Amino acid sequence: MIKHALNVTREADFNAWYQAVIAEADMAEESGVRGCMVIRPWGYGIWERIQRLLDDRIKATGHENCYFPLFIPLSYFAKEAEHVDGFAKEMAVVTHHRLISDGKGGLMPDPSAKLEEPLIVRPTSETVIGAAFSRWVQSWRDLPILINQWANVVRWEMRTRMFLRTSEFLWQEGHTAHASEAEAREETLKMLEVYRDFAETCLALPVVAGEKPENERFPGAVATYSIEAMMQDGKALQAATSHFLGTTFSKAQDISFQNSAGELELAQTTSWGMTTRMIGAAIMVHGDDDGMRVPPRVAPWQIVIVPMLRDNDEDAALVVYCKELQGALAKLSAFGEPVRALLDLKANKAAAKRWGWVKKGAPVVIEVGGRDMAGGNVSVIRRDRLYREDGKLDSAVVGKDDFAGQAASLLEEIQSGLYANARAFLDSNVTRDVTDFAALQDFFGKGGKPGWLEIAWSKPSGAELDKVVEKLKGLKLTLRNVPNDAAPATGACIFTGDPAVERVLVGRAY
Amino acid sequence: MIKHALNVTREADFNAWYQAVIAEADMAEESGVRGCMVIRPWGYGIWERIQRLLDDRIKATGHENCYFPLFIPLSYFAKEAEHVDGFAKEMAVVTHHRLISDGKGGLMPDPSAKLEEPLIVRPTSETVIGAAFSRWVQSWRDLPILINQWANVVRWEMRTRMFLRTSEFLWQEGHTAHASEAEAREETLKMLEVYRDFAETCLALPVVAGEKPENERFPGAVATYSIEAMMQDGKALQAATSHFLGTTFSKAQDISFQNSAGELELAQTTSWGMTTRMIGAAIMVHGDDDGMRVPPRVAPWQIVIVPMLRDNDEDAALVVYCKELQGALAKLSAFGEPVRALLDLKANKAAAKRWGWVKKGAPVVIEVGGRDMAGGNVSVIRRDRLYREDGKLDSAVVGKDDFAGQAASLLEEIQSGLYANARAFLDSNVTRDVTDFAALQDFFGKGGKPGWLEIAWSKPSGAELDKVVEKLKGLKLTLRNVPNDAAPATGACIFTGDPAVERVLVGRAY
Repeated sequence: MIKHALNVTREADFNAWYQAVIAEADMAEESGVRGCMVIRPWGYGIWERIQRLLDDRIKATGHENCYFPLFIPLSYFAKEAEHVDGFAKEMAVVTHHRLISDGKGGLMPDPSAKLEEPLIVRPTSETVIGAAFSRWVQSWRDLPILINQWANVVRWEMRTRMFLRTSEFLWQEGHTAHASEAEAREETLKMLEVYRDFAETCLALPVVAGEKPENERFPGAVATYSIEAMMQDGKALQAATSHFLGTTFSKAQDISFQNSAGELELAQTTSWGMTTRMIGAAIMVHGDDDGMRVPPRVAPWQIVIVPMLRDNDEDAALVVYCKELQGALAKLSAFGEPVRALLDLKANKAAAKRWGWVKKGAPVVIEVGGRDMAGGNVSVIRRDRLYREDGKLDSAVVGKDDFAGQAASLLEEIQSGLYANARAFLDSNVTRDVTDFAALQDFFGKGGKPGWLEIAWSKPSGAELDKVVEKLKGLKLTLRNVPNDAAPATGACIFTGDPAVERVLVGRAY
Repeated sequence: MIKHALNVTREADFNAWYQAVIAEADMAEESGVRGCMVIRPWGYGIWERIQRLLDDRIKATGHENCYFPLFIPLSYFAKEAEHVDGFAKEMAVVTHHRLISDGKGGLMPDPSAKLEEPLIVRPTSETVIGAAFSRWVQSWRDLPILINQWANVVRWEMRTRMFLRTSEFLWQEGHTAHASEAEAREETLKMLEVYRDFAETCLALPVVAGEKPENERFPGAVATYSIEAMMQDGKALQAATSHFLGTTFSKAQDISFQNSAGELELAQTTSWGMTTRMIGAAIMVHGDDDGMRVPPRVAPWQIVIVPMLRDNDEDAALVVYCKELQGALAKLSAFGEPVRALLDLKANKAAAKRWGWVKKGAPVVIEVGGRDMAGGNVSVIRRDRLYREDGKLDSAVVGKDDFAGQAASLLEEIQSGLYANARAFLDSNVTRDVTDFAALQDFFGKGGKPGWLEIAWSKPSGAELDKVVEKLKGLKLTLRNVPNDAAPATGACIFTGDPAVERVLVGRAY
């Protein structure tokens, strides 16, 4: 029996395990502000890696970053509320711009500093960016406009869960305007592919890219695409979305241009986003009963060196020995970037440090004691293979120079191993042979980790689709997306009995 | 007579010129939201470069990034207001979390969704980070805590000016906690030096680092240090600050620890920040009557290649020729990073592009026409030497390969040239021989670009200092800082007549 580092296992209580990983890995904590979290350095370091790698891809596809205001005047939303069904109204509203003493030793909003027009803390920047596009776009020569913003946004949430659903979260939102529908549709799919590639390559998260059914579209979108990842409990998590907005927003905000024939046309717009939710997805895909396992490409530190200091004369030499290794590692390159190696000299016991880094999920932990140094060795712990077959911690003694020689390829091996594991889990948990509704009910009713069904359907619309959605809701299921690479549909729709036209994923979801 | 690219010169109207640079260089624009600006790609690209280069330095000095909530409960400020004199109350207050229809086709805050406790949009994160430190620090082993945050903050401003003073701005705020006063003071000065080095090395902004007088301290600080830059109109701009906070905040927020002797002690804290204001400083130091001049280290694009396309058969070959150059440049390294070269293929006239990039201040603009290509040449425009002696645009024909061979050193030469110019301006506009108040009045009364006085003073405190500050205020002057490298003071204080103890800078300021 392995004694794991966490008090709770995935098997015993997946939700409690998720919270335990976040706490024990020092990734985030409650802030004392309802629905908002403090993202601690290890969690934020992963976000910084996500930002850097995704931003490189966003720029490589021709987009430029800019920054729009946090506050949006209320009237902007009134316009949107008219144009967009399903417009969400749970937002943080700023009504005053000054505090005064409340006469009881506290403070209160100053009644004389009430804003003439309330300001909304942006839930997304669609409206304010649309207004800018309207100013910037006059002629076809001004198109396309390809911009992106990294920012915080706020949506008032009643039930929050760290990283997955918080009132404030961090994200990037891309917004583009194009002269033709074909170009805007191409952009929408291009960014979906950027997300798919980024998730799989950098976060080692296998995903299914596809179009969301009509009921799951972003309000106002003509088409919404997503990448869906499968958590270890079999639930789906929508990891990023890309929207083709047609002229919905350009009509509402007058984003029009003179085409080359001199006629006035509405621009075709898109938007696409990925959030700090991705960190929650990475935890629920890669974490194990010892904590988080961070894929090396997004690990703030890929290799952590822990000298076994004993407060004696040998310590100084041990530190020098470890610094040599750190220096050698820093010269290496993995995934086209310098290797990130930390020498942990904090004033804690070596065993506490080891388990701290295991719970954080540093890909490789190197321990160096006096005996290792005497033999020119180091002790190597791989986070992806923590235990030997006999259940003992797998700490391998390796020559120091040998380790440095193989470190980069070791990191690449760990990265691809995490991906392969997750890919196998996803692939083996999508079931494609269920063809009637009773079997669907049976499938999701049997408990355990059911994964997803990919079923043939007739792609109902409007009221007919609403009925399907209601029926699924009763089973706590949702339609996820229509995979781009699904096989052609045959037979009858599982819901309507009409001839099937495509295959759609159904599952429980976060 | 040179016909410059802007409609207004620095000489004619410095403020109008500043606004014109920002508009003509597409750096930022009004957003339609009071006091908030849209930072456009060229302006934001400079901020991204600032972030990357400063962040590297912040991490290299042992700090880790994290993220704290945008919202801070009102009660946190009530506590601070008790402890801190001069606590500013101009803040954005969130009072509701939902909108509803106002029955007149518009929206309004939902009265039934009023928050029990109002939330403040962070003006700085001192209080919420202090609360976290209080949770994180128990033992001396937990210290030091060295963190930094990149974030947006809001301070309600009555009179705003783009980049210099906006209601929302972007910044980094470092916060640290230490076991000893000596260590916290060392940290405060270390980060001041990081700012000085960063400003001078990366932004080519010469600055004076020193301690602020008592009246200019951050509320609650024991000591506040700043770097001060001199704009081309002779005014000072405080470019960054570093504060030693002593135990003011740890007392208010109970950041205490058990020291190695087992006794409970208050931690010593610091904070330090730099903002998007820096972009305003760079404009007012480096800009000229043709627009912005961006120092190469922070230029989003360092070299812009403009093919002189004529919508004819030659265009395709010209683009290939330009791409060869771009490829060769991308392989080069300047300032230890890959050279950033853009090929501008937008559908505009070449002359419009040239002047667009001149106004934006790209360090080098390369124009390539058919004749250049035929001769294996390119035409090189250096933004730091735009005109020949005869007043004509200085466009030098250079062999394409020769240019690529010298491009990296050219960028380094432009960077150091901008710094040397600004340094000479600063040095020649600090006057040190004024020793009586009448002469001071006379100095600042004569108009023109007066620059600063460095004067000997007795470092008055309390009410005595208030009198000095009032007297200076009448002349629109402020005390800037006591330069770290000022000569020892001799003689009598210009204000009090008492023996002088140090030398302090006096000037007009932004």
